[in-house]
Amino acid sequence: MRFDILTLFPKMCDNVLDESVIGRARKAGIIEVECHNIRDFAGNKHNRVDDAPYGGGKGMVMQAEPIFNCFKSVYEGENKPHLIYMSPKGKTFCQEDAVRLAKYPRIAILCGHYEGVDQRVLDEIVDEEISIGDFVVTGGEVPAMLLVDAVSRMIPGVLSEEVCFTDESHFDGLLEYPQYTRPEVWHGVSVPDVLLSGHHKNIKKWRDEQSLEITKRLRPDILK
Amino acid sequence: MRFDILTLFPKMCDNVLDESVIGRARKAGIIEVECHNIRDFAGNKHNRVDDAPYGGGKGMVMQAEPIFNCFKSVYEGENKPHLIYMSPKGKTFCQEDAVRLAKYPRIAILCGHYEGVDQRVLDEIVDEEISIGDFVVTGGEVPAMLLVDAVSRMIPGVLSEEVCFTDESHFDGLLEYPQYTRPEVWHGVSVPDVLLSGHHKNIKKWRDEQSLEITKRLRPDILK
Repeated sequence: MRFDILTLFPKMCDNVLDESVIGRARKAGIIEVECHNIRDFAGNKHNRVDDAPYGGGKGMVMQAEPIFNCFKSVYEGENKPHLIYMSPKGKTFCQEDAVRLAKYPRIAILCGHYEGVDQRVLDEIVDEEISIGDFVVTGGEVPAMLLVDAVSRMIPGVLSEEVCFTDESHFDGLLEYPQYTRPEVWHGVSVPDVLLSGHHKNIKKWRDEQSLEITKRLRPDILK
Repeated sequence: MRFDILTLFPKMCDNVLDESVIGRARKAGIIEVECHNIRDFAGNKHNRVDDAPYGGGKGMVMQAEPIFNCFKSVYEGENKPHLIYMSPKGKTFCQEDAVRLAKYPRIAILCGHYEGVDQRVLDEIVDEEISIGDFVVTGGEVPAMLLVDAVSRMIPGVLSEEVCFTDESHFDGLLEYPQYTRPEVWHGVSVPDVLLSGHHKNIKKWRDEQSLEITKRLRPDILK
């Protein structure tokens, strides 16, 4: 699977995508992620990609043409990738979206900045708008990286063992049970006895109960 | 305001925090962001910071002691910062949290990884758990950067003009109206006439109507 990220700040993405699970999946060739600098498609000698909004208002709006040309260059001669615009107006991203998007062979992500993007290019090339949550951030880059991360984890081979993701919070609709590791006693607090019992059935029962209880207490809204 | 990020992947945060609005605010000395490598506090010659979960299960759990010592080192002799654990179990982050958190003089953020963190250290040092959304990502680093971004924007002086953030999606509970910039006609589509009229009252009216209509259509849930 291939991700193309269209951004004014390609450097922002580099280190993030090199580390941890995503970095390993890239090195193993399971996923490809490339960042494209929209400014390279400015088409003017000052490399300008934004201008004042029609109708007035503060801030600058990203122009249509550089984005259009950047996107075209990303898939020249090949099938158009599914283009996502990271936008506060989009559908709020959730785990079902990660599962759904992992089925595309190619995804491109447009990262907005400044006060926004000329609506005409969005209407012409964007397939879906996704929001990472109900808060304002400076640009679409960090949200895009979260999306790449969440989607990549759903691609077979990215996680070393399938059980890793089926056990996690939000995967089965419940929050995860508490975890403990060595030492057995830390700052005077012991690991719950049941986890030391070696009795697998009781451990599973305890963990299931904890998950349910934690979800009820912290996120009753996701309990259906 | 100062942010301390406790992580196993300090490099992930570097480029992100150097760019754009946050980068400028750091250079101007309005915010300080420092990353701390939990592994530096492993306290053993193999720099090990994780171990198998008690009770069995795949993956590794981050141990209590390195995290505890890393956090202590962050504020030695000073007031304990407000410690946030980025966790899928946390309260879902939203704009009101960004406004609220911007009032703390210091915030520290603990980024989880692997299968989780020993519950005992969370119980002992964490002030609040925040989730970035209902999806699974590899670690807390990218969510932490989103939080730093959203909170920083609420600190006076970080954005050059106050109007910038009061106009944006989610700030006043409505999604933003569509934006247009030069050229007037792009791919055969014109900018809406009203925006070219120079009639400020009509422009404001049109934008307000668009905001309301877009919010009704895309996010009826945030219209109260």
